[in-house]
Amino acid sequence: MTPSVTTQREILKEHLAKTITLTDSEFDHFFSYLKPYSFKKGQNIISEGDHVACEYFVLNGCLKTFYINKDQKMFILQFAMPTWWASDYGAIYGGGIATVNLDCITDTDVLCLTSEDRERLCKENYQLEYFFRWRSNKGYVAQQKRLLSFMNNDAKGRYEELMKMYPQLYNIVPKQLIAAYLGVSRETLSRL
Amino acid sequence: MTPSVTTQREILKEHLAKTITLTDSEFDHFFSYLKPYSFKKGQNIISEGDHVACEYFVLNGCLKTFYINKDQKMFILQFAMPTWWASDYGAIYGGGIATVNLDCITDTDVLCLTSEDRERLCKENYQLEYFFRWRSNKGYVAQQKRLLSFMNNDAKGRYEELMKMYPQLYNIVPKQLIAAYLGVSRETLSRL
Repeated sequence: MTPSVTTQREILKEHLAKTITLTDSEFDHFFSYLKPYSFKKGQNIISEGDHVACEYFVLNGCLKTFYINKDQKMFILQFAMPTWWASDYGAIYGGGIATVNLDCITDTDVLCLTSEDRERLCKENYQLEYFFRWRSNKGYVAQQKRLLSFMNNDAKGRYEELMKMYPQLYNIVPKQLIAAYLGVSRETLSRL
Repeated sequence: MTPSVTTQREILKEHLAKTITLTDSEFDHFFSYLKPYSFKKGQNIISEGDHVACEYFVLNGCLKTFYINKDQKMFILQFAMPTWWASDYGAIYGGGIATVNLDCITDTDVLCLTSEDRERLCKENYQLEYFFRWRSNKGYVAQQKRLLSFMNNDAKGRYEELMKMYPQLYNIVPKQLIAAYLGVSRETLSRL
């Protein structure tokens, strides 16, 4: 069920409060730039080749960022659960054109922020600039951990690490998607 | 040869100018917080378990960030060539204690910035906050590309991608370190 505006505000406010302290009017101003969208399970948000102008803050549900190679094999780069942000950041900070895809594993409600508005808000308010720097740093560190896990662990080790970090994924995400995240076949995963 | 202070300033100034525009006095202020260090080939800068308080801007030479697993196998997370930044960012933005190592592939000159100073400088000057956010975003996107390359390509594809992106590595970095970056044995690399 799509959360009410009050609930949307609460979720975002609590998320920001972990990193920065905004006054009520500063928060209201930030919130006014965010547009709510409801997507259905399976619905596509970004497709390879799209011009990418937005990033998405997940209120409820679950998204996946993924890449399909020339042999039609899917690789999952990221799951995005409530209070996570998702987009094609390569496009946002690079050429603007998507090289990966973003779609919905379940019905999902998001708040959408355009890159143009994010940059304007960051210029206006030092704290938001700090917030987005902090978020990017956390993302960088998480990616590095994942890369190391990929290099250092076998499929079983990667699966155990993932389930330890995000046990909630087990109930939300179909097994073939977890396999695509781990870079193994569905059959290999079921043997773990 | 250790670069003169004038050359150090020029390298850093040009690096910053790609992203932000500082006045001379703003640049001088930033530069005053950076401490030059000269390291010898093979010298260790960060070891697993160290408290990490600094990040390093490479002026010349080449560094590597790496992890050694319990079987003494080395995995290289990052090379850092001139104008790249290196540290254990997991420690810097997490618990403070290094989980990876940083050392010198060649004699290397760096400028060192403490986390405390970086945060102070970012608070003082919006443009530096913007610079470090931008840098972190670029790092995030590069990590994502590398992860995708790891999932999608075999060793040959990963090697070709690396050499296309950073052809200069071929002359600077010994082959066994390129193998450790690609996650293959030295023997596999020599067959590519």
